Amino acid sequence: MSTTMADAGLVGLGSEATTPTGPQDTGEARRLISADKVEGTAVYNKAGERLGTVEDIMLDKISGKVAFAVMSFGGFLGIGEKYHPLPWSALHYDIQQGGYVVDMTREQLEGAPSYGTDENVDLNDDVYGRRVYDYYKAPYWNAGI
Amino acid sequence: MSTTMADAGLVGLGSEATTPTGPQDTGEARRLISADKVEGTAVYNKAGERLGTVEDIMLDKISGKVAFAVMSFGGFLGIGEKYHPLPWSALHYDIQQGGYVVDMTREQLEGAPSYGTDENVDLNDDVYGRRVYDYYKAPYWNAGI
Repeated sequence: MSTTMADAGLVGLGSEATTPTGPQDTGEARRLISADKVEGTAVYNKAGERLGTVEDIMLDKISGKVAFAVMSFGGFLGIGEKYHPLPWSALHYDIQQGGYVVDMTREQLEGAPSYGTDENVDLNDDVYGRRVYDYYKAPYWNAGI
Repeated sequence: MSTTMADAGLVGLGSEATTPTGPQDTGEARRLISADKVEGTAVYNKAGERLGTVEDIMLDKISGKVAFAVMSFGGFLGIGEKYHPLPWSALHYDIQQGGYVVDMTREQLEGAPSYGTDENVDLNDDVYGRRVYDYYKAPYWNAGI
């Protein structure tokens, strides 16, 4: 899992290699990023507090869209860790921060839909999924409903 | 990299766990799949010939869509390996095959846009990207152009 520069938003689009290696053109916004690079990237809030890490990217098989970026949050040495599913649009890469910024206070994030490692949560469940997207005020990923 | 069952198409949508673990409901089509599961999945053609392996998922930062699934093809012990960028829609999971099926002969795949590990190919280049999508007769991922 890489924690080097990775972009996911409109802020601070930077330059990084594509697969296998592309030209390092810092003058041009680079639209694409490897899912491998996104995973493991740190997540902060606007106050610069470290909130967690992007653990997983959940893709919609039919449309090929990212349905959720799952962030791990809290816990200590793997115990008590929570997972926060986030809409892709909630992640904004910040070059200075060296990670993603989510525009939420720590309290707002603690109140967000989340689950622990021992909980059965089905991200395919549109009721749950809509709750997540509503919380982050984003249009739901599943346009079929 | 997991080679267990992973879905990316309309064929044989199977059941697999979400993150961390979801209900194993084989009666219901499960729309979502972890990018980690997609990577490392074998790719075959309709004749059942092994073509390669999905190496990487390239995401569009702005829309959160998969722009390319990059498949490694050919080579021996890592030498002479080629990368084939594929549209997401070209991948169809086949439960019996235990991997993705791309509807191409080996010859068609050999003639497809590809690059070696020492070549500089920029997947952000829309000219190159359109060439890939045209080859697979798929609508280009970048709707802005």
